[in-house]
Amino acid sequence: MSIVEDLSELLGAVNVLTGKDAAAYSHDWASKYHWTPLAVVRPGSTEEVSRVLAMANANGTAVVPVAGNTGVSAGTYAEGALMLSLDRMNQIEEINPTARTARVQAGVIVETLHQTVRDQGLVFPLLFGAQGSAQVGGALATNAGGSNVLRFGNVRALCLGIECVLADGRVMDLMNALHKDNSGYDLRDLIVGSEGTLAVITRAVLKLVPAPSAYATAMLATPTLEDGLAVLHRIQAETGNAVEAFEFLPEHYIARHMERFADAREPFDKRHEINILLEVAATSDAQGQADATGAVPLVAQVEGFLAELMEKGQIADAVIAKSETQRVEMWARRDAAAELALADKPNIGNDVALPVDQVGAFLEDAGARLVKVDPEVDIFWVCHLGDGNVHYTLRPSRDDAGLMDRLMETVEDVVQDLGGSFSAEHGVGLTKRPSMARRKDPVALAVMQSIKAALDPKGILNPGKVLPDQ
Amino acid sequence: MSIVEDLSELLGAVNVLTGKDAAAYSHDWASKYHWTPLAVVRPGSTEEVSRVLAMANANGTAVVPVAGNTGVSAGTYAEGALMLSLDRMNQIEEINPTARTARVQAGVIVETLHQTVRDQGLVFPLLFGAQGSAQVGGALATNAGGSNVLRFGNVRALCLGIECVLADGRVMDLMNALHKDNSGYDLRDLIVGSEGTLAVITRAVLKLVPAPSAYATAMLATPTLEDGLAVLHRIQAETGNAVEAFEFLPEHYIARHMERFADAREPFDKRHEINILLEVAATSDAQGQADATGAVPLVAQVEGFLAELMEKGQIADAVIAKSETQRVEMWARRDAAAELALADKPNIGNDVALPVDQVGAFLEDAGARLVKVDPEVDIFWVCHLGDGNVHYTLRPSRDDAGLMDRLMETVEDVVQDLGGSFSAEHGVGLTKRPSMARRKDPVALAVMQSIKAALDPKGILNPGKVLPDQ
Repeated sequence: MSIVEDLSELLGAVNVLTGKDAAAYSHDWASKYHWTPLAVVRPGSTEEVSRVLAMANANGTAVVPVAGNTGVSAGTYAEGALMLSLDRMNQIEEINPTARTARVQAGVIVETLHQTVRDQGLVFPLLFGAQGSAQVGGALATNAGGSNVLRFGNVRALCLGIECVLADGRVMDLMNALHKDNSGYDLRDLIVGSEGTLAVITRAVLKLVPAPSAYATAMLATPTLEDGLAVLHRIQAETGNAVEAFEFLPEHYIARHMERFADAREPFDKRHEINILLEVAATSDAQGQADATGAVPLVAQVEGFLAELMEKGQIADAVIAKSETQRVEMWARRDAAAELALADKPNIGNDVALPVDQVGAFLEDAGARLVKVDPEVDIFWVCHLGDGNVHYTLRPSRDDAGLMDRLMETVEDVVQDLGGSFSAEHGVGLTKRPSMARRKDPVALAVMQSIKAALDPKGILNPGKVLPDQ
Repeated sequence: MSIVEDLSELLGAVNVLTGKDAAAYSHDWASKYHWTPLAVVRPGSTEEVSRVLAMANANGTAVVPVAGNTGVSAGTYAEGALMLSLDRMNQIEEINPTARTARVQAGVIVETLHQTVRDQGLVFPLLFGAQGSAQVGGALATNAGGSNVLRFGNVRALCLGIECVLADGRVMDLMNALHKDNSGYDLRDLIVGSEGTLAVITRAVLKLVPAPSAYATAMLATPTLEDGLAVLHRIQAETGNAVEAFEFLPEHYIARHMERFADAREPFDKRHEINILLEVAATSDAQGQADATGAVPLVAQVEGFLAELMEKGQIADAVIAKSETQRVEMWARRDAAAELALADKPNIGNDVALPVDQVGAFLEDAGARLVKVDPEVDIFWVCHLGDGNVHYTLRPSRDDAGLMDRLMETVEDVVQDLGGSFSAEHGVGLTKRPSMARRKDPVALAVMQSIKAALDPKGILNPGKVLPDQ
């Protein structure tokens, strides 16, 4: 029997998709990459995941884990490989409001978890554009980030415990709900972010936080990025680090957003170079409760800071959301980023991290160097300013692989000069493997290769991803 | 030539200590363990560390890294081994107040870093009793915790980048100042907390935070631990998670403190079972600045919460520090913990982590079960209540290895039943290896062994620590 037949026997034919049934799994989110998987298997339990992997390992069959398939680094490319989906493992096993933890299976959709904990006055603070499709397991495998990293960290910082299955089918139990655990090496953080190349995450214990009693959300413009950082530091100090988002949208972002969406509105009466979406959360009832006139103390407080900073010249313009509708409009503008950046092809997506005080230097240097490589290159960015993370998309003047590679290398040069990383939150997958080979410390690469060989000696887990060929 | 002669030639004889000169390095902090090292070497640069390790690796010589030697798990036990001290690598290379980072060599003493950044209005929020001797490298190697973990996390969460040297002398450069970096496996967090068994950390980039403009520090008593947690959650919500410490001192702690220190004072007029040291930090000037009458808004605010919670019956008693002297007195009581716990021998130090809502169940179950094993056992604890971390010290009725092992196993049983960990922040070292063998998931142990073999194939780095024998 073929392995596909064996798997059908194990899981039931309905949970082993091939041909047309697997069509939805045969390309990445942006449809840049297409492939034909051997089959897509949908185990319903950790035990079944274990048996699938043991079988694939014995057979030497490549296995590519797939979750919501919303990644932008082609981490699910699976030509001829078995794809492993945990979408049937979608149980929220427990919400513990006292310990503020959620125990979930890996196939739970992030947005579903959001909705479920909200009913208990809690938040799972992982917010990003794809949360309506992305699954917890995929978010963990890629150490997903998003708009709230400034306050809560990447998903690695939101994860207390995991259960995962190794290449040979052994189940590793690191499921705990502990805030401290120094019992040996930090295997949890090693598996989280390893993009399905070391193990398949099947369950997790996640941190929850109390739902804010109110938000103060504003658009502001600052004369310089230094002013932007000073404003961030000031508001952090005044609110006790309650800033949840500090998103920098440059002028060309606003312009493109206005062009593409008929119902879009300008954030300000006039255009500014530096536009920032600010969101601050109130955790106390006192700060969040509207008085008889409808005024919310937190909003009034933030308005006060903004007025004061305008007086000092550190803010050029500011609008605060006066209703949930206005807040939603501000966020919709930010959430359009992926569509604005990636709709036109060909494009080169860069997701770079810099020391927080080097974002301005990066934008200046990269811009200057890129036009020398391709005078007509189109540059589009949006930036998690508080994290030093720039999503920096290039549209070259022509569809030319050599040119595109030179442009990508130019960005990497600037990033490296400034002590940054070529991947902040989008991971490596398939698309950034050349960058890994070129830019990562060679000793670190060798160590990663040796860990991969130790944990997955046959190399069946997501082969050809993350690590360069040796 | 012997390796000690080779090392003398490399580093200069003055930096290779043997015999009497090595006496200070021949026992652990509590003087429970004694050993005779082959020699103590003190390299002055990463390059020298690299050459020492390459030499030791070629020679198959065991190397035990030692920093401030303040650990309590005998992680520096080094019979016949070469001890490697980075105390000469004590440069603070850069403080960046804009990016809020410090770049340091591993031999910097934690307290020295505190003092240095304080001058710039910043804090390195790692506070624990041994900070006057402990070095950054040792804190990172053991993933040290302390009193501020509740707000800032263990040192792993305070570390952005490291440089380290592998067993064979290769230098791995993970030195960056980035808040996001998804370029491959999380090797930083793997090396941090590996207790010198995978690599020797030589430099680091650490996170800094703004110095609070004021503290509100109080002792409070609560009727139950559930009330204690409710009080914590309430104050967290009201202050936007500005609680820096929430330390539970049981009645017997107060009693022993009064006995041992002539100048000690009772925290309250009458004794309570549950006494909590609370500290809240103000980050804004407005919250922290005293008015004309000397009243500090944060202190007044916290006093208000405490009064309100007393009215509701969730607090039985409360005293707020009205001066720095009173604050220092409250902290001195807490900082005496190690002395109070470990002065009398023999003792068994347990450092257990529990889900935050299971601390009460642990104390009850463990107490009940231990007296069945040894009716005269003396139990002493202090607890980072917000983290679910109990330092739980046993003094058995007699010095009997078998009895002591049964007592330790009893504690482990209760911890395991409640989903906890036998090591919260003190690590494994030598003393908790039996617990690792008994309690850690066997697949996790096998994975750790395989990583150790991949990174240190000759097993020269801190042999006989952390991992059980295979």
